[in-house]
Amino acid sequence: MGVLDGVRVLDLSRVFAGPAAAQVLGDLGAEVIKVEEPGRGDEARGFGVTKEVLEKFGSSPSFLALNRNKRSIALDLKSPAGLALAKRLALSADVLLHNFRPGAMEKWGLGWDDLKGANPRLIHCGFSAYGEAGPLRDFGANDVALQAHSGLMHLTGEPDRPPVRVGTAGIDLHGSLGMVCAILAALLHRAKTGEGQKVTSSLLQSSAHLMSYFYTDWWLAGTQHRRMGTANHLSVPNQVFPAADGDVVIIAPSDDMWRRLARALDPATLDRPDFVTAMDRRTHRVALVEALTAVTRRMTCDEILQRLGAAKVNVARLHDVGQAADHPQLREAGAVLDWERAGHAERGVAPPFTLTACPVEVRRPPPEVGEHTAEILREIGLDEDAIAAAREAGAFGPSAAPGKMQ
Amino acid sequence: MGVLDGVRVLDLSRVFAGPAAAQVLGDLGAEVIKVEEPGRGDEARGFGVTKEVLEKFGSSPSFLALNRNKRSIALDLKSPAGLALAKRLALSADVLLHNFRPGAMEKWGLGWDDLKGANPRLIHCGFSAYGEAGPLRDFGANDVALQAHSGLMHLTGEPDRPPVRVGTAGIDLHGSLGMVCAILAALLHRAKTGEGQKVTSSLLQSSAHLMSYFYTDWWLAGTQHRRMGTANHLSVPNQVFPAADGDVVIIAPSDDMWRRLARALDPATLDRPDFVTAMDRRTHRVALVEALTAVTRRMTCDEILQRLGAAKVNVARLHDVGQAADHPQLREAGAVLDWERAGHAERGVAPPFTLTACPVEVRRPPPEVGEHTAEILREIGLDEDAIAAAREAGAFGPSAAPGKMQ
Repeated sequence: MGVLDGVRVLDLSRVFAGPAAAQVLGDLGAEVIKVEEPGRGDEARGFGVTKEVLEKFGSSPSFLALNRNKRSIALDLKSPAGLALAKRLALSADVLLHNFRPGAMEKWGLGWDDLKGANPRLIHCGFSAYGEAGPLRDFGANDVALQAHSGLMHLTGEPDRPPVRVGTAGIDLHGSLGMVCAILAALLHRAKTGEGQKVTSSLLQSSAHLMSYFYTDWWLAGTQHRRMGTANHLSVPNQVFPAADGDVVIIAPSDDMWRRLARALDPATLDRPDFVTAMDRRTHRVALVEALTAVTRRMTCDEILQRLGAAKVNVARLHDVGQAADHPQLREAGAVLDWERAGHAERGVAPPFTLTACPVEVRRPPPEVGEHTAEILREIGLDEDAIAAAREAGAFGPSAAPGKMQ
Repeated sequence: MGVLDGVRVLDLSRVFAGPAAAQVLGDLGAEVIKVEEPGRGDEARGFGVTKEVLEKFGSSPSFLALNRNKRSIALDLKSPAGLALAKRLALSADVLLHNFRPGAMEKWGLGWDDLKGANPRLIHCGFSAYGEAGPLRDFGANDVALQAHSGLMHLTGEPDRPPVRVGTAGIDLHGSLGMVCAILAALLHRAKTGEGQKVTSSLLQSSAHLMSYFYTDWWLAGTQHRRMGTANHLSVPNQVFPAADGDVVIIAPSDDMWRRLARALDPATLDRPDFVTAMDRRTHRVALVEALTAVTRRMTCDEILQRLGAAKVNVARLHDVGQAADHPQLREAGAVLDWERAGHAERGVAPPFTLTACPVEVRRPPPEVGEHTAEILREIGLDEDAIAAAREAGAFGPSAAPGKMQ
């Protein structure tokens, strides 16, 4: 049984953070209704995709990764008829999720203050770029904009080269879990009090949480950290080292772990008095990295993994995306979900946690745009005449020909 | 009123992911008891810190960033007397959090199967490196190990240079929210059924969730993505551009946004037929970046921000850590929390979400090691004689002199 069985989520969000949050709610058992723009649908359906891949799968892998366990309704929010249906759906929802710019929902009559009278148990979750107040409130942004704004990009790259992007949309995806936390907390509050509430998150809050220990270091000690390639200011060694046949990362933050490392790899070279404490190792960073590199270069990755694994020292191999995705450990950890869609076997990553009493199931593959429009409208009480009238009035977009809707 | 008022969390975790999760629970109102090794305490207290900073603040800024709203008890889990007290605390807890290696908790009699008989409402949350089964289950790891293992590092860096680390411990911090999601979901399940459960998360699951859309792309289409400096495979433009006096990122994933960008900056140069659709812009990536660079070089950052902000195009300035931390927008977004500790004004980052009906409060600054040992033991029913006997038996470590405990 899913934790969120019976919870109805109206998901008005697009692209990454909001859809990723709604997918976790769906994985937990909620009934998620995704509202999409008629025709194009969620713009992420076209992100980063070649013509061949689009023809074969219908939507981008990025979209398919983040939209299982949802149904799709195509509504044109710019038409009064489409907007009226969205409002009707909002009145029957437990959770509403959106990432429109501050002010847009209020303009449409879909803000918390507009809905709370008729639906006081609603949890109204808005995800914005920079929050709903302040000098940047009206600026648009996305993941990489906040990587730049937050200082994360400044910390990422080689010391003597320009900064680079974090290779994944981590601020979006971290923000998605921020929203899930907020919504689950609000559901707990509602279970106790009967009251819904407005909850919010933003790319800015997500990025700041990811940067929190750097900000505190700046605020308290005035420390301005800089990018260090694969190394880290917290401890030494804590970076990539070259092996004879590839690369590994080796991390030994505690004095005990360093001692075990030195003994497991080459005590004659590494068991030195100037490397004994964490502070010693940071002070003699260059000498330590040089000494350890001379040792790792002579060994294969496998040998280093075996020796350090046995000595309980943190070590890992540097993988490319395919090696990482296909590593058997991923499925053993419960991180892989499988489904079928339009004759294809497809696969996605599970939420980053396991509830042993309430396992995740893929009840629905990612939907086509508007695949469930009529079905959902019937559920909220529209008969065929009312659906036809809404279509006539442009609720499903100007191009929704009478016979075309699924 | 905090959502988690009355929820008792026993936090046996150390360093980043677990403590960050427990801090969010504390911010939501839970009563968090942090168990620390006598003497040294959480090893993160010594991470990345100079002697001067350590003398002034007592613990590292990294520790102070992640440990507010907790009390600390110093217990030596290697002594039978210390372990007995930890078990006693576990029996009165609603949530137990730990990040010991798979098997360690069971060895101590602190596993879910050991505790569920006496405390069936307990939510037992374990955070591991690679999960509790599979070929890598016994390997130690940390944030950067999973950056390497997951392929994230492979995607981060310049195309013709070696990979680099993501500048913050994003896999740890994302994992912390994974745990919070799991614990809140399990509390909802308990509210409905009365039953506790075991929940787990891992660095591997956290990293896979951050990489999810790349893995699906590999699994479905066989696409092996590579690092691209500040650029992105999803859309163009989506990267850093040089201004006359600094750097900005500019992102225009949709065709509408690109058209607004071209008109706002330089229609004569940018409004070209080969840049009209998202696929056109990806196909003509090099030409577009060159053309846009020629335009941005002539303008200041302020001018680009003004023009693109007004045109509702995603744009942001590239900040260093201090600029980001001190930007006034951060406080406007509710991301900054203030407290006093030992006469210092200190500051940290709030959880990455806002519950408007249940605002976050800093009820307690980060604790000293064992600051609340006696207080907590009295609360679970130990009198002064019992506390003295436990001390005598080594529960608080071999160095706990009779008069020394706070």
